[in-house]
Amino acid sequence: MNPSLASAQTFRAIDVIRKKRDGGELSRGEIDYFVNSYTCGEIPDYQVSAWLMAVVLRGMSRAETAALTDAMLHSGEILDLSSLAARKVDKHSTGGVGDKTSLVLAPLAAAAGVAVPMISGRGLGHTGGTLDKLEAIPGFNVNLPVAQFRRVLEVCGCAMIGQTAEIAPADRKLYALRDVTGTVESPYLICASIMSKKLAEGIDALVLDVKTGSGAFMKNEEDAVFLAELMVETGERMSKPVVALITDMDQPLGRMIGNALEVVEVVEVLRGEGPRDLRELCLELAGWMLHMGGVADTVADGKKQSEKLIASGKALDRFRQTVELQGGDPRTIDDPTTLPQAQHKKTISSPRAGFLASLQCEQVGTACVILGGGRERKEDSIDPAVGIVLHKKVGDAVSAGDPLATIHYNAETRGARAQQLLTESYQISEAPVREKRPLIHRVIGKTGEKN
Amino acid sequence: MNPSLASAQTFRAIDVIRKKRDGGELSRGEIDYFVNSYTCGEIPDYQVSAWLMAVVLRGMSRAETAALTDAMLHSGEILDLSSLAARKVDKHSTGGVGDKTSLVLAPLAAAAGVAVPMISGRGLGHTGGTLDKLEAIPGFNVNLPVAQFRRVLEVCGCAMIGQTAEIAPADRKLYALRDVTGTVESPYLICASIMSKKLAEGIDALVLDVKTGSGAFMKNEEDAVFLAELMVETGERMSKPVVALITDMDQPLGRMIGNALEVVEVVEVLRGEGPRDLRELCLELAGWMLHMGGVADTVADGKKQSEKLIASGKALDRFRQTVELQGGDPRTIDDPTTLPQAQHKKTISSPRAGFLASLQCEQVGTACVILGGGRERKEDSIDPAVGIVLHKKVGDAVSAGDPLATIHYNAETRGARAQQLLTESYQISEAPVREKRPLIHRVIGKTGEKN
Repeated sequence: MNPSLASAQTFRAIDVIRKKRDGGELSRGEIDYFVNSYTCGEIPDYQVSAWLMAVVLRGMSRAETAALTDAMLHSGEILDLSSLAARKVDKHSTGGVGDKTSLVLAPLAAAAGVAVPMISGRGLGHTGGTLDKLEAIPGFNVNLPVAQFRRVLEVCGCAMIGQTAEIAPADRKLYALRDVTGTVESPYLICASIMSKKLAEGIDALVLDVKTGSGAFMKNEEDAVFLAELMVETGERMSKPVVALITDMDQPLGRMIGNALEVVEVVEVLRGEGPRDLRELCLELAGWMLHMGGVADTVADGKKQSEKLIASGKALDRFRQTVELQGGDPRTIDDPTTLPQAQHKKTISSPRAGFLASLQCEQVGTACVILGGGRERKEDSIDPAVGIVLHKKVGDAVSAGDPLATIHYNAETRGARAQQLLTESYQISEAPVREKRPLIHRVIGKTGEKN
Repeated sequence: MNPSLASAQTFRAIDVIRKKRDGGELSRGEIDYFVNSYTCGEIPDYQVSAWLMAVVLRGMSRAETAALTDAMLHSGEILDLSSLAARKVDKHSTGGVGDKTSLVLAPLAAAAGVAVPMISGRGLGHTGGTLDKLEAIPGFNVNLPVAQFRRVLEVCGCAMIGQTAEIAPADRKLYALRDVTGTVESPYLICASIMSKKLAEGIDALVLDVKTGSGAFMKNEEDAVFLAELMVETGERMSKPVVALITDMDQPLGRMIGNALEVVEVVEVLRGEGPRDLRELCLELAGWMLHMGGVADTVADGKKQSEKLIASGKALDRFRQTVELQGGDPRTIDDPTTLPQAQHKKTISSPRAGFLASLQCEQVGTACVILGGGRERKEDSIDPAVGIVLHKKVGDAVSAGDPLATIHYNAETRGARAQQLLTESYQISEAPVREKRPLIHRVIGKTGEKN
């Protein structure tokens, strides 16, 4: 008798649930059994949701988290990109408002000689999603089959698609269940979900952008740091170098929020323009990607190379090439005014003089969702044209009547609802803003960094 | 618009789950919505099991526990026994080994003028069940329709049946889900399950026998006391007098374990014979039932009346009558040797002289299950004839070779397995046993007791 089969037969779902309920540490075998049996339909949803709630409330050890990640990773296909000579590095963000860095970073790192096999998601809650942004480019296909994904990657060094059915099917099933059972908010489950999908891309290293602040899922820095450390250690246990940057999401990143608008800002940054915070974060993350991808000795060197690739236009060329290879209209890159545009605009003005003290970031994201830039229900379709352009950021001085933001909208009722929410999210103070939050709070797990 | 409908529409299952997950206190409206929507199939199992696990790990306030009990009680029919002049009192035990008190108490209290509308359960795990014991009497029907249950009750003052589809359907559905999701072990859920079913019997008062010790579900006295207090307070909040006796289950109650054997012992006690511990506990519980049923001024008076009803044969007569009215063969009561008998017997002897220091009570119960006296799987059928007769109890002096117990069995392999388990459950010490555990540890909630 097959010994692994014999031991598998000794596991029972109820025992695994009870053990976690009572705060015990699950063995690798128990976790493998539970994940595999659920994926193939042998354990019903109602047992798994009880287990998920026990994990949310009891937590997991580092060993359990790594075992869960590994079981989810091996529930499906792991891309074999070993035929590519370049090192493969991806970047993942935990989600924010106005965060369009992925669209800058993939072509930028590719132009530097790092391969970026990027598998991304859609907007979640008040946050935007890379796939929704890419689809604002007419014709852009995020649903390439794996063979075509590989071909685009070979030709231009980066490719950007959505999750396929073959990648981490356990995560797909678990995530759908977590979403409806109040078991999303667990760093252990978030870590396993992110890491299993990212490691299935066949990457050599990973740069994580863990957001913190009013527009992030982790509002508190401690929670963000905890998740970042968990993901870095999980990577280490699975022999993948991982670095995590804790970055600010207390106000939107850049000035534009909304899918087509964000593509406009991506092109600005790739032209060496665009808002300073977005440029700075892109360069920092690119520095890490180049360094971990083996084309830069230090992060600082990686940043310098990235600046040059932007200045020379090579990064923008690479973005245009990727768009074209994935079926998108490359003219939109040369002339972003050809991207979808909303029919109406209205501007919010400052009621008085002073300084912009804070901007409720989650509310800004929600205002964009209300406009149609995100989904209120899963079945909603996205309006790529709508969004918000910010004219002032935290710390800026404002005069009475100064424009604070412009809303791009198509439906009058949505425009009015978003206007109200957006107006409420501004706080103007009389005194100058003393302490400005840094853009990059911390770096966790400086794997391979040479000082 | 119906205001209750309007408010019901504002509840969402996911919000109720999240609130409990985060340790919040659920409102009466939230609990009603959740229980009712689950009972009618509008909330799926997987959401409820996540909620159940959150309840297990986060607990419930007394108000939440009472609201849950009330919602489950009102999920079905509540018997209206107001046409009966007598006060209606029931007794419920949390389950033990050799606990056949219900079969003594129902006719005994009925003979004293208290009505006992008893709805009981089957064996669970290593513990026996009242219905299984009653069915050891050939012909005894525990599945009477409500109308017939009421008629038996009117004629002889007590009736004993199993749960009907109309009684607390929410509990039936929740219990089945708890059983397979590791969410049985929560005092709040146990309290709501027991109390909702018992209060649906239309009783005026309730006596609880909460077991503690190695053969009980609550091994520790603190856990038993916590559950008892919870049930007493839940009763109070629902305006039902409830008293709970914390009683010993560190060794089996009486000398006989097994369904027909336990009926034999019931008849012994009703004849004024039988083992002292069983007699004593029956009198104590009967004292409370008579007192709470308004036929005895004090518990002590209730005990005295009970002793007289046993001595006069009136209690036994009432038992015979109940058996006959529920289709059972009354000759078995007059001649218990006509009850089902096992084909084989084997006796375990003491390996040496000394004192019986302890008897692993759960193991003794499990040995009886192995013989066929209980169910290892839900679909198993019960063998009424098998069981165990104890010849020594904790504290008794034994000589080498003295019989400790006799196993009544039908299948050789089962007999051998039970013999091994039973043998291992005895501990013989050289020194006399100093501290004997009391039979009745505490009384909680002396509702209505006059000193």
